[in-house]
Amino acid sequence: MRFSVITLFPEQVRGFLAQSITGRAMDKGIISLDTVDIRDHAINDYGKVDDTLYGGGTGLLIQCDPVYDSWKTLCSEEEKPYTIYVSPKGGVLNQKKVIDLSKKKHVAIICGHYEGIDSRVIDEICDEELSIGDYVLTGGELAACVIIDSVSRMIDGVLPNEDAYTNESHMDGLLEAPQYTKPSSWHGKDVPEVLLSGNDAMIKYYNRTAALVETWQKRPDMMNKLQLSEEDWQKAIAFKKSL
Amino acid sequence: MRFSVITLFPEQVRGFLAQSITGRAMDKGIISLDTVDIRDHAINDYGKVDDTLYGGGTGLLIQCDPVYDSWKTLCSEEEKPYTIYVSPKGGVLNQKKVIDLSKKKHVAIICGHYEGIDSRVIDEICDEELSIGDYVLTGGELAACVIIDSVSRMIDGVLPNEDAYTNESHMDGLLEAPQYTKPSSWHGKDVPEVLLSGNDAMIKYYNRTAALVETWQKRPDMMNKLQLSEEDWQKAIAFKKSL
Repeated sequence: MRFSVITLFPEQVRGFLAQSITGRAMDKGIISLDTVDIRDHAINDYGKVDDTLYGGGTGLLIQCDPVYDSWKTLCSEEEKPYTIYVSPKGGVLNQKKVIDLSKKKHVAIICGHYEGIDSRVIDEICDEELSIGDYVLTGGELAACVIIDSVSRMIDGVLPNEDAYTNESHMDGLLEAPQYTKPSSWHGKDVPEVLLSGNDAMIKYYNRTAALVETWQKRPDMMNKLQLSEEDWQKAIAFKKSL
Repeated sequence: MRFSVITLFPEQVRGFLAQSITGRAMDKGIISLDTVDIRDHAINDYGKVDDTLYGGGTGLLIQCDPVYDSWKTLCSEEEKPYTIYVSPKGGVLNQKKVIDLSKKKHVAIICGHYEGIDSRVIDEICDEELSIGDYVLTGGELAACVIIDSVSRMIDGVLPNEDAYTNESHMDGLLEAPQYTKPSSWHGKDVPEVLLSGNDAMIKYYNRTAALVETWQKRPDMMNKLQLSEEDWQKAIAFKKSL
């Protein structure tokens, strides 16, 4: 899968993703990342890419042509990348959207900075506006990294094995059960005995129920979205009482 | 304001935030950032910080002591930092939470990696679990950068002036109106005439109404949370009809 990022700060994006798991996936050739520097498509020799807002207001807006010309370098006659503008105005990213994006061949992400980008070029070239959450960042670069990191790890071969992502928070609409490692007793807190029992059926039952309770306590909004069976509710209620 | 990040990948966090607006805020001394490498508090000379999960399952979990000892280096007898564990299980970050955090003196952010961190140390030292959205990342480092970036820009002196953040998406529960810069006509698309009129009252009316319509079209879920006056609704309805 190919990711392209159109940005004023290509080093920031490349530097971050070159490390850790995304970096290893690039080394292995499972994903590729290229960046287009908007300033290379400035409208004059001084590198100008922005101008004041029509109607007044503070700050500068990136102009249409530098963004459009940057994007054109990623298009061939046959193919255009699936193009995303990261913006607080977009639909909010979630794990379902992450999985959808992991099936695309080529995703281009446009990062705004300062006051953003002239609306007209966004309307013309973007397939989607996407936000990583209901808060404001200084630029789109972090959001681009979040999208690339979350999507990459859903691609075969990026994580060590499939178990590593099918069994975690948000994959089945539940939070993960609390997890423990050595030592079995720490600061007076013991690991639940069942996890030391070696009884796989009991452990599975415990983990499913603990995940239900974890979700219920920490994210009741997610619990309401689940279509839980009567049995699941009974399990969770009994378990919560036993705590 | 001071940020401390407890992580296995201190370079990744420092490298990203050293650039752009957060980097300038550090140079000016408005914010400070320090990192604690969990591996410096390993439980043996081989740098071991993780172990297998009790109850089975794939992957490794970071152990209690390396995290606890890392955190202790940030505490004095009088003061403990406000401590956040970034995790997909946490409450979801929003602009209100960003503003709350910008009032703290010292925020410490703990980043998990691999399967995460033993639940017991999180329970013991964290004031809050926080998620940046309902998706899964390869580690907490990006989430820490998102929190630091969004909180930093709310601190006096980080952005060039206050207008730059009071007048943008999510600050008053509305998305920003579409924005335009030169040229006034691009690829057959003209900037709305009112923005060229120089009539401040008309422009203000237009921008408010366009923000209402933008929110209504792109994020109907946000529109429903607003307590709109009858007048605002009438404005938005009339404007939408006129498009």
